[in-house]
Amino acid sequence: MRSDSKLGFTRIDRVAPIAPDTHGGRAKCLQRLIRLDLPVPRTVALSFGVVHQIAAGKRPGTEALLAEFGPDTLLSVRPSSQDPDWGGPGAILNIGMNAAQHARLTASHGQAAADALYLRFVQSYAIHVARLDPEMFEMGKAHGSAELQAALRAYEDETDEPFPQDIGTQLGEVLQSMARAWEGTSARLLRQARGAPADAGLGLVVQEMALGIGPAESGSGVVQFIDSNTGQPKLVGRYLSQSQGRDALGDTDGALFLTQDARGPSLQEKCPEIFAQLLHYGTICRIRLREEMQIEFSIEGGQLSVLDAVRVQRSARAAVRIAVTLAHDGVIPEQEAVLRIPPRSLTELLHPQIEPDAPRDVVATGIGASPGAATGQIVFSSTTAQAMAARGEACILVRRETAPEDIRGMHSAAGVLTERGGMTSHAAVIARGLGLPCIVGATGIKIDPAQRCLRTADGRVLNEGDVITLDGNAGEALLGAAAMCEPALDDAFNSLMGWADDARDIGVRANADTPADAAVARRFAADGIGLCRTEHMFFEGERLIVMREMIFADDPADRRETLARLLPMQRADLRELFTIMAGTPVCIRLFDPPLHEFLPRERAGMRELAGALDLPLSKIERRIEALSEFNPMLGMRGVRLGLTVPEIYDMQARAIFEAAIEAAQDGVPVTPEIMIPLVSAMREVEVVKARIEAVAAAVRSERRVDFAYQLGVMVETPRAALRAADIAQHVQFLSFGTNDLTQMTYGLSRDDAGRFMHAYVKQGVYPEDPFHTLDTEGVGELLTIGAGRARATRPGMTIAICGEHGGNPESIAFCRAAGFDYVSCSPYRVPVARLVAAHLALRPYAERTAGVNPLSIIH
Amino acid sequence: MRSDSKLGFTRIDRVAPIAPDTHGGRAKCLQRLIRLDLPVPRTVALSFGVVHQIAAGKRPGTEALLAEFGPDTLLSVRPSSQDPDWGGPGAILNIGMNAAQHARLTASHGQAAADALYLRFVQSYAIHVARLDPEMFEMGKAHGSAELQAALRAYEDETDEPFPQDIGTQLGEVLQSMARAWEGTSARLLRQARGAPADAGLGLVVQEMALGIGPAESGSGVVQFIDSNTGQPKLVGRYLSQSQGRDALGDTDGALFLTQDARGPSLQEKCPEIFAQLLHYGTICRIRLREEMQIEFSIEGGQLSVLDAVRVQRSARAAVRIAVTLAHDGVIPEQEAVLRIPPRSLTELLHPQIEPDAPRDVVATGIGASPGAATGQIVFSSTTAQAMAARGEACILVRRETAPEDIRGMHSAAGVLTERGGMTSHAAVIARGLGLPCIVGATGIKIDPAQRCLRTADGRVLNEGDVITLDGNAGEALLGAAAMCEPALDDAFNSLMGWADDARDIGVRANADTPADAAVARRFAADGIGLCRTEHMFFEGERLIVMREMIFADDPADRRETLARLLPMQRADLRELFTIMAGTPVCIRLFDPPLHEFLPRERAGMRELAGALDLPLSKIERRIEALSEFNPMLGMRGVRLGLTVPEIYDMQARAIFEAAIEAAQDGVPVTPEIMIPLVSAMREVEVVKARIEAVAAAVRSERRVDFAYQLGVMVETPRAALRAADIAQHVQFLSFGTNDLTQMTYGLSRDDAGRFMHAYVKQGVYPEDPFHTLDTEGVGELLTIGAGRARATRPGMTIAICGEHGGNPESIAFCRAAGFDYVSCSPYRVPVARLVAAHLALRPYAERTAGVNPLSIIH
Repeated sequence: MRSDSKLGFTRIDRVAPIAPDTHGGRAKCLQRLIRLDLPVPRTVALSFGVVHQIAAGKRPGTEALLAEFGPDTLLSVRPSSQDPDWGGPGAILNIGMNAAQHARLTASHGQAAADALYLRFVQSYAIHVARLDPEMFEMGKAHGSAELQAALRAYEDETDEPFPQDIGTQLGEVLQSMARAWEGTSARLLRQARGAPADAGLGLVVQEMALGIGPAESGSGVVQFIDSNTGQPKLVGRYLSQSQGRDALGDTDGALFLTQDARGPSLQEKCPEIFAQLLHYGTICRIRLREEMQIEFSIEGGQLSVLDAVRVQRSARAAVRIAVTLAHDGVIPEQEAVLRIPPRSLTELLHPQIEPDAPRDVVATGIGASPGAATGQIVFSSTTAQAMAARGEACILVRRETAPEDIRGMHSAAGVLTERGGMTSHAAVIARGLGLPCIVGATGIKIDPAQRCLRTADGRVLNEGDVITLDGNAGEALLGAAAMCEPALDDAFNSLMGWADDARDIGVRANADTPADAAVARRFAADGIGLCRTEHMFFEGERLIVMREMIFADDPADRRETLARLLPMQRADLRELFTIMAGTPVCIRLFDPPLHEFLPRERAGMRELAGALDLPLSKIERRIEALSEFNPMLGMRGVRLGLTVPEIYDMQARAIFEAAIEAAQDGVPVTPEIMIPLVSAMREVEVVKARIEAVAAAVRSERRVDFAYQLGVMVETPRAALRAADIAQHVQFLSFGTNDLTQMTYGLSRDDAGRFMHAYVKQGVYPEDPFHTLDTEGVGELLTIGAGRARATRPGMTIAICGEHGGNPESIAFCRAAGFDYVSCSPYRVPVARLVAAHLALRPYAERTAGVNPLSIIH
Repeated sequence: MRSDSKLGFTRIDRVAPIAPDTHGGRAKCLQRLIRLDLPVPRTVALSFGVVHQIAAGKRPGTEALLAEFGPDTLLSVRPSSQDPDWGGPGAILNIGMNAAQHARLTASHGQAAADALYLRFVQSYAIHVARLDPEMFEMGKAHGSAELQAALRAYEDETDEPFPQDIGTQLGEVLQSMARAWEGTSARLLRQARGAPADAGLGLVVQEMALGIGPAESGSGVVQFIDSNTGQPKLVGRYLSQSQGRDALGDTDGALFLTQDARGPSLQEKCPEIFAQLLHYGTICRIRLREEMQIEFSIEGGQLSVLDAVRVQRSARAAVRIAVTLAHDGVIPEQEAVLRIPPRSLTELLHPQIEPDAPRDVVATGIGASPGAATGQIVFSSTTAQAMAARGEACILVRRETAPEDIRGMHSAAGVLTERGGMTSHAAVIARGLGLPCIVGATGIKIDPAQRCLRTADGRVLNEGDVITLDGNAGEALLGAAAMCEPALDDAFNSLMGWADDARDIGVRANADTPADAAVARRFAADGIGLCRTEHMFFEGERLIVMREMIFADDPADRRETLARLLPMQRADLRELFTIMAGTPVCIRLFDPPLHEFLPRERAGMRELAGALDLPLSKIERRIEALSEFNPMLGMRGVRLGLTVPEIYDMQARAIFEAAIEAAQDGVPVTPEIMIPLVSAMREVEVVKARIEAVAAAVRSERRVDFAYQLGVMVETPRAALRAADIAQHVQFLSFGTNDLTQMTYGLSRDDAGRFMHAYVKQGVYPEDPFHTLDTEGVGELLTIGAGRARATRPGMTIAICGEHGGNPESIAFCRAAGFDYVSCSPYRVPVARLVAAHLALRPYAERTAGVNPLSIIH
């Protein structure tokens, strides 16, 4: 900072003290290019602190700054934030152009070049510095003298002052306008949406222009050596003679391909030596910067300059392949490859895709801003989205455009569709961050939030609740639920996840209730099943009828008889589950929900049930009335039901044991784990344990086979956490069910919280929705108390978390720090959780190697 | 124990090692009478250990025992348990009677006396020792030779053996039968119902008979110097010539009054010297035994013997007066008087009574087994009683008879009525313990539990849900809700409670929502109001309509306008409350319940509401639907409502402040305490606090008066307890709402727990219903955590408990140990809580003085 305090800037050379967190990533990258002997024009960096002072009104020391460059030099100013993804104001080129320079350049480079250079600067200055109406300075494609004169005149008309001729004034105003733009609200919101901290700073880079315009071969271009979508090697870029900046990428007819191309002329043909130089620089960058870079270059009078290099923008898929290839090539270690992939970005890879040949009834077309596909009911507000999510129903959030207060709704939605916006709109940025399929700018539709409907381009009306499917790749919304297929997980993905698994030190299991769920869990290499909710097996067709008969059984003997009919179904399900999960543990939670969930709510259903069970309707009604509860969440469910109607757990224990025996006979040995839900007192565990042991003894004796199993408790009540020392005497594992535990710790029903949670989070009453992000202060303390007390009783006891928090990075970090053995989450979140766990385990490595490669961002 | 181990008994003299916990209260009392030089016949005590061995089959050393007495002495055996209230087998008299004794006594005392003495022994022995059919030994009132011969013959016929003539055999069998009776199931259940521990022992006392039968003035009697019902001084007793034991109290024509009496002859007239002696002994007993005693005496040949003395049986009212009088007279210290009153016994005094001139439609008559009066709906099972209690509805439990499994039902009932049983039946004993009005032995009614109805003696049928009123004093059940009046609290009660208040070191406040509640709290000398639930003020008549208008208000302005109409009503209520509670603190809880509690549930009500509010029915239905909740306990209530609809708390804060100002202007200064309900996060408190401060500032400025108030939090969620350190930064007090806190800690809705709580407690899954007895292990830990953390932040901060646990002795002990400042309970429990608190504070005193007065039982 030596030079900052005195002069306000730092000349970038091999030794200047430049760091990403003081001068930004671009400044640092330029220094590295200089160290690699790439032909970078003279460059000076302004630190975050200096830029912040400039924004606050302090005049930059432009004279000293200008003295760093030769006289009559044109300059560019570019932003240099800590993370390039955080954005920043656009570059401004050709600072220093004035009448005198114009005259000089007319002499040296010709009238056209001088006009073009001056005009470009006047346009930029007028629009971005003087903030005049852009329309007045749109001159079309022509850049001649007439346009230049018109621009200068427009400037003078609007400002009542002539265009500033003093280069110091020009530079000072440019620096100040860029510094202030960074502090504007929209820039701040955008970068915060991308993960920037509230106090993220901006550096600026002032560079001598390589003009790209002039008599000998001059121009500018951009090149990268990798495909941004696939991550496969591919030389991509354009070059445009007589151009500056990124003009070559624009809508320009004269741009050249870089390599020889059948479609037109190429730089390789036109300037083979320069092309060879570029390839060489690319290789140097890849190996020495240990990253795939996009290089911005300029040619002036046949001389190549490298103006800038940035990380190649990439899809999640490409990011994985790039990291894995760099590691395979020995450029970076495998750990580094693992750390380079933001875990949440994997969701994008894991999303199902629409079957290629599925019929498509397109109801909206826009920009595919975030890939993947999702089906759900249309909702028009974030509140409704949250309510639907609370009910476990998928929805597509449809908005004119999204704002920061929609973030919770987007968290709850399966996909997002907006009428307005582009690739960098709020909806697009956030959806990509969340890994949600997203279509923006679907301008053909007309949303009427008041009527809760939307009108499609062809005049159809869709209402809230109608089902649509988003294709985030194609940017199309389809009517109805389109057929989906699972994504192929490629070799790069598998390599990366293998390295992640090598690194991580906490297990990741899946919550899987059905053989289908288990198959996904297996495909995503879960370490086992952490939560199999057996009751879901009872809601299907014929089984539901038997369940209802069981509920209406008059005595334990009748109940046992009915349950005996459910036994073979449950046993078969479990056997299939064990077979799919072969070799990994499966944790089965005993029946949990209140019985009334199995009974019809409407009169028609009751009448039907009366017929099916051959019982008077009045008896059905009385029974349903008797089973209804004021607060079902806090009622007769879980182990309370297990103790009150013990025949259910008896049947389930038998199904588990018999399925395990049969799976073992099939050659798939399994040690089932049996989990008791909703425990609040040790004695509940003792009573259930005794009955399960009796069932085990009976099955062993009937089948003449021995088998092992483990018994555990799902810790869902604060009391179970507090009494974990007692409970641990009787079981081998504890798994925290943080959904219910959160409800009880807060005294807050998830189903009912939707009505005010939005306002609560918005007002900062709760920093986050505790059902989405684990409340480490309250619920988290119960987790650490429970784990600590349990292990004090039974050292080395297995401790886990299941429920939706299980897949969240923050929760995984918390549980790992608390010494948990595994987390269990929904199958689709398993890869993310595995990668998060690897990142956590590699954190010491990352800290040790920080600074080695400042271009790689650890998320 | 010296003599126990060798000889199995201890001769009672002034120095023998006799203690209540080794030989029982009777043995100890007899030793004290001996030390006081009262004429007690020779007596030997058998310890608990010896009696237990005898019950187990070991032969008592009767020869050595008999050697303690002269030859040809008749003996009695009486039980001597640690606490006389725990019961024991009946006394057996005249052991040693046989043919030879009969002959000897015929010579010395005459044929009639000898026949009577022998017959009495044969009868007792046959029935209690040989366990023969009592009917065969009922000889009516005649006790002549014919009856004696018949009894001896019956004995021989039934046992095929002659009546035992050996005195050693007689005594051994008597001792064994009494020892075994103590261990029988019914005796054990009865004494446990009275508070005896499971291993309570029985001692036996063998005493030389003072015959009470013979030629010179002989007889027996019982005397006490106090009225058992009122505790006022009164000489009560009877004397019967030629009688033994407690014959004088029986259904006997010849019994004498003790003092001169217009209705007939008296002992005072007949034997003035003996009468004077008795009075003297009474005075000695009172002063030296420091207790009101009932004396059993005998006269043989003009000589007075004191056979036994026991604490006078007494009503709760009498107990208070006796203890207070003893203290006033300097016989015992005031602390001792306080300790002598079991706190729960006060409930009996505090119960309302039926208005003396209220009309009485008697539907059942029985024994008034526990005093007081109560109104409630008839229920026929304990489960139903618990369900009703959970809904806050009063019920009368009606059973043929009660059994131990009915205890929870009795806890939940307002009164108990049984068809069978007497003063010592299970129902009677338990009801007195609980302070519940109880009528037993209502043999005129016929209960049909299956049909859930009862038929009265005059043929009327009452169904479950019909309302009756029990008069536990008169032993009558009345149809409907009889008019009640409050009990007069007499001077003795007030003295005792004053001493209790001097002793106690934890505050006792009342939960009082209305001026009427507050008046009761004031009468019972509560230290203030610990919980005033303001919402109860909104359920009445006109207010409910305004509340509903508020709920249907379309925007905050409308809402404020409607609330402005509630403001004067709330302010007036509070002003009255402050005036009643003048000089004591009043803690007002802000609005807590979910809004849907104020809306109709049925269609008719909705239609009516639509008319009243002039709104379409569909809008009413939609709003009610929108406000309905899956789990209201965990929904939008308390501070959540306060934040979401802040106008309600604004209005309430204003009402509180304005009422406080007006009360102060009336000369009743008050510092209101404002309590925020259902807090789960510190920020909730901050937000509400800021709004309340704004209201306070506005009121101060409008009224130009300053006032003070305190802000606090009701800790009802586990999270609030865990985060108490944060919360304490912003408030002056915390009060634990243990009702909700228990629900959330267990994850258990009180409303829904009734369906299985009975089975749970019966199986010992929960040792007690946690809604009745504070769960010290789970909920209690949250209390200590919360209190500790709060005080760590703010030393000396006020910590309290409110809710139903607040009045329980166990909870008070827990909270006192945890350093709480006060407990708050229902107004009727305030005196009990004050006395419990005094007992706790006096525990060191009680322990220091234990043994000084072994006749006083510390409950």
